[in-house]
Amino acid sequence: MPGLDGEKMSKSRNNCIFLFESEKEIKRKIMSAFSGGQASIEEHRRLGGNPHVDMAFLYLKSYFLTKKESEDVSERYSSGAMLSGEMKNMLFEKVIERINKLKEAYEKVDELYKNAEMGNVRLYFSIWNLGETVGVFDKHRKTTDPKLSTQLLLSESMKLLVAGSLSILDVSSDIITHSIDLVLKHHIYIADALQIATARKIQTGRFATADKLLSEIAEKEGFKVIKLKG
Amino acid sequence: MPGLDGEKMSKSRNNCIFLFESEKEIKRKIMSAFSGGQASIEEHRRLGGNPHVDMAFLYLKSYFLTKKESEDVSERYSSGAMLSGEMKNMLFEKVIERINKLKEAYEKVDELYKNAEMGNVRLYFSIWNLGETVGVFDKHRKTTDPKLSTQLLLSESMKLLVAGSLSILDVSSDIITHSIDLVLKHHIYIADALQIATARKIQTGRFATADKLLSEIAEKEGFKVIKLKG
Repeated sequence: MPGLDGEKMSKSRNNCIFLFESEKEIKRKIMSAFSGGQASIEEHRRLGGNPHVDMAFLYLKSYFLTKKESEDVSERYSSGAMLSGEMKNMLFEKVIERINKLKEAYEKVDELYKNAEMGNVRLYFSIWNLGETVGVFDKHRKTTDPKLSTQLLLSESMKLLVAGSLSILDVSSDIITHSIDLVLKHHIYIADALQIATARKIQTGRFATADKLLSEIAEKEGFKVIKLKG
Repeated sequence: MPGLDGEKMSKSRNNCIFLFESEKEIKRKIMSAFSGGQASIEEHRRLGGNPHVDMAFLYLKSYFLTKKESEDVSERYSSGAMLSGEMKNMLFEKVIERINKLKEAYEKVDELYKNAEMGNVRLYFSIWNLGETVGVFDKHRKTTDPKLSTQLLLSESMKLLVAGSLSILDVSSDIITHSIDLVLKHHIYIADALQIATARKIQTGRFATADKLLSEIAEKEGFKVIKLKG
């Protein structure tokens, strides 16, 4: 996906949207995105816009709209019925909605960590999660520094480990044995099965996840699921 | 992907090709595949075939040909220049070629296991591989029985474990720590990094894999790679 200006996405070009930007800054970025509209409203109504080069439309299509909705919007834009400003506003609203959901999830994780720091809850996770999370950081290396994120993750985890509010479990043969049963039973990925098998091993009744499928399977397996998705 | 008859792929319909079938049986199956050709050669030359419903063409397109090659073949078939028999022969040759490569790889793995059984080599793998392999079995549950395959895998592994020719390593925090370094260095998946980190931990100089990318990275990391791909 290119950045909002249609060029390669990059931190230095500042052509992407970040989670903790102000609404004002996000609005500014979206409103100055590369547009496929005409120079004036009159011309736009007469000639129509070009959705194929319109960055707001491309983002809407890729991240927010169903196929049917995309086709509708594309048609209305091409015919001139829909203006560039309306397209950008639609994207802005969708982005804010998504960001608010993400922030909610973020706050839930934050709360969980704070509760752990205060010694109210004890967190457990598989050593596998640590590696998987770094994999996600690395995948987004174009927009964030994976080494810095990894250091933060490790130092935060270390803080909790030292305080005794976090335990990290190795992937041992008994956990894999149970994971294998779960893979064959629910047809899920081994990495997902591992989460549930790890929770089973520590004999907790609670299971926190942001993943919809995983949360369903965990419920089927009798866990009380803490949903980290907003 | 549908089976060779255009219906849903299934063991009971026997409409898929298996690795250890005879060439004769494979030929028979491909030759009786659902075809988009005309009733007679004369008609085919005159009217051309329909590649969109021709199973041999769909298999060629999906598994064997480049986009350019597919377009060429599709055109020659539609125009009547290429006959159904020729299409099926092309698929047959590609299938046999692929199967021979797979058999070669299979034999290399087999040899490795036999050498281990005789005590000539000692094999090591991460407990993770066991789970991942079962995940692959489960993914192909429409054509093979994942529980049976898993039992076989476990019993074969157990035999070597008992004989002391195989060690299975847990995913421990030191292995994940090293894996994280490898992810950030080579931008590979954590599951791939884990293989190399495990090999590093047991201080072997040799690394066996069927994966092309993994074999390149292992070589960069100084391992002598045993390529399991034919």
